[in-house]
Amino acid sequence: MKAAFIGLGVMGYPMAGHLKNAGIDVCVYNRTAEKAQRWVEQYKGSMAQSPAAAASGCDVVLSCVGNDDDVRQVLLGDAGALSTMRSGALLIDHTTASATLAREINSAAAAGGVGFLDAPVSGGQAGAENGALTVMVGGEGSDYEAVKPVFESYSKFSKLLGPAGSGQLAKMVNQVCIAGIVQGLAEGLNFAQKAGLDGAALIETISKGAAGSWQMDNRFETMLADQYEFGFAVDWMRKDLGIAIAEAKNNGADLPVAELVDSFYAEIQEMGGARWDTSSLLARLTRK
Amino acid sequence: MKAAFIGLGVMGYPMAGHLKNAGIDVCVYNRTAEKAQRWVEQYKGSMAQSPAAAASGCDVVLSCVGNDDDVRQVLLGDAGALSTMRSGALLIDHTTASATLAREINSAAAAGGVGFLDAPVSGGQAGAENGALTVMVGGEGSDYEAVKPVFESYSKFSKLLGPAGSGQLAKMVNQVCIAGIVQGLAEGLNFAQKAGLDGAALIETISKGAAGSWQMDNRFETMLADQYEFGFAVDWMRKDLGIAIAEAKNNGADLPVAELVDSFYAEIQEMGGARWDTSSLLARLTRK
Repeated sequence: MKAAFIGLGVMGYPMAGHLKNAGIDVCVYNRTAEKAQRWVEQYKGSMAQSPAAAASGCDVVLSCVGNDDDVRQVLLGDAGALSTMRSGALLIDHTTASATLAREINSAAAAGGVGFLDAPVSGGQAGAENGALTVMVGGEGSDYEAVKPVFESYSKFSKLLGPAGSGQLAKMVNQVCIAGIVQGLAEGLNFAQKAGLDGAALIETISKGAAGSWQMDNRFETMLADQYEFGFAVDWMRKDLGIAIAEAKNNGADLPVAELVDSFYAEIQEMGGARWDTSSLLARLTRK
Repeated sequence: MKAAFIGLGVMGYPMAGHLKNAGIDVCVYNRTAEKAQRWVEQYKGSMAQSPAAAASGCDVVLSCVGNDDDVRQVLLGDAGALSTMRSGALLIDHTTASATLAREINSAAAAGGVGFLDAPVSGGQAGAENGALTVMVGGEGSDYEAVKPVFESYSKFSKLLGPAGSGQLAKMVNQVCIAGIVQGLAEGLNFAQKAGLDGAALIETISKGAAGSWQMDNRFETMLADQYEFGFAVDWMRKDLGIAIAEAKNNGADLPVAELVDSFYAEIQEMGGARWDTSSLLARLTRK
């Protein structure tokens, strides 16, 4: 199998590496060529000067870039991957982007006989490095089955959730749930600090019950230590919540807390915390 | 050991039963005497006509009633338990109540040589029936150690979290965390429904990652089925959030989402959902 991987950020770089380590012939493209050069040296793959050149002759093309505009450029642009993909090939976008864009790419791909899956991931940088991501997939069942072994090289779980766009919609639900969880946790820990409670003893007591969450288990220590220089950046969370809020205007869903938390993240950006982990909602309460 | 248990509601009734089944001599008091009579027949214990009468001669007195006013009446009132408790005995309040009241009872108890622990629980009716509650304790270490075996008859975990009032403060943190989690989950599931996603497949995909929570694992099925006639009632959640919000005004903590969610629960009460489970935040979005 011959594959192209477009976008070697903190997620794409190790994902493309797992793909290569699984025995697949991988050609990479990255806007900053130095990073592609480093990847080629580390994994003994090849690189190309454009998405179109990387995608040429491939069975599968994967992308993981920044936002809708980036996806549009690397897949649909003049030197975009779709311009050289052959009929029968599969295009997979791992970027968290809008469902509207996913449907647009799906149509453009179908016009050239190319199958498309929108496939945003969760699990963060650690999940990408450890090959333990979760992949939320939208598209056709036959395309998903064909590419499932590829996903298995860097994920612990993948699932087809419906037609084109469904992967993106699922990722939006994921981020909306997280917004409420993290703000609730931030308010709870801020209250605990103001009340003079021992945070570690408190969390030991409440984390196994109805207040328990992945965020509580994995973030309370760093939150109580006022450490946010790691993890999933506020900038990225705002991008994702913005996509969810825009989509909710279309489908009529109410997102009062997601919208409020998005405004809190905007305050954190103004505090200089654009690169802080999403758990910095506590810093907004403690550092002001 | 001779104990009294005051308040045989959905929590107290089975808790007092576990206590009796653990070999402790238990005398119960309940405002509605019929329920005490039923308990006596089921567990072969004894009953009294007032908290004072039940508490007389006991080593340990436990209470689990409705709110601050109820606690005040059964513990501090003319026929309250403290009026007959002997020096050296221990008083334990399992009611979720204010930290201010816990400190007031602690002072009143200390004046008579009685030790006091505020000890709200989590785990709900099922936890009480299965003897699997979590107990959040405030008070003196020696009192906690003395009564720990009593807690073990109906709990799977208990922890001393600080001086008098600390158990109540911990329970408030628990409820504040839940408020954010459940509203985030409600917004996410409402979004998923509007977007046409398969809810079960979605939750299977996202529940093991950063969006995962006890509430997601244990409530998504009933939420998607629009079923709320069970669980922890909105009325009780509003009582608990009201205590937390009042305490936050004292200690300076910010609870923007807890306050917003409390206002949503007020809307659910107006919809006729006062006895619905707290997960009915989704019904507020779907039934309006």
